[in-house]
Amino acid sequence: MVHKANARLDASFAALSDPTRRGVLLQLGRADASITDLATKFHMTLTGMKKHVGVLERAGLVTTEKVGRVRTCKLGPRRLEDERAWIESYRLLWDARFDALEQVVQGLKRKEEME
Amino acid sequence: MVHKANARLDASFAALSDPTRRGVLLQLGRADASITDLATKFHMTLTGMKKHVGVLERAGLVTTEKVGRVRTCKLGPRRLEDERAWIESYRLLWDARFDALEQVVQGLKRKEEME
Repeated sequence: MVHKANARLDASFAALSDPTRRGVLLQLGRADASITDLATKFHMTLTGMKKHVGVLERAGLVTTEKVGRVRTCKLGPRRLEDERAWIESYRLLWDARFDALEQVVQGLKRKEEME
Repeated sequence: MVHKANARLDASFAALSDPTRRGVLLQLGRADASITDLATKFHMTLTGMKKHVGVLERAGLVTTEKVGRVRTCKLGPRRLEDERAWIESYRLLWDARFDALEQVVQGLKRKEEME
């Protein structure tokens, strides 16, 4: 279970690590689009765009459907819930860590003032 | 500015796309650790762990300091704020997109009921 969740996070964070792929996701958030539309919009070859869409599709972030000769892309079923949760838990740890540091600093300051 | 923010997101999402690197971040959220500690904890060679820490360091997620022969790792200054914000804006688009779809479905259902 953990292993599966981990593999999913690996795939989605890797998918998000490219500016074109992030742009494609935001674009599909506005309207469905064909691979050709996306290639034109992002000034890319059809082959290049197909690769990016493939990465997004394997990460469950995009689904595609071919009708006739046109492959239409739309947002996939994943709402980045696990990714959001991971980042939140990191931020909680980060806050606790830096709050603890801040308390040490404040403690030292008080000690100096008392001396 | 946008370009710089994009490069930062590229680096941090790529850094987060590996389970060991995510584990190291959570571990450092609990306590600072040397590269040797981390290598032992994650059953990895020193060289392998150095590479992972290097990726995290370049993404601004970890800082390291060498005192004598020991390199200590701690959480870096970045609280994943931009990453959180990017994921949130995606989720808003996703919700709007699927709400719109839901409205179309409800509209069709109402039409059927009226007929």
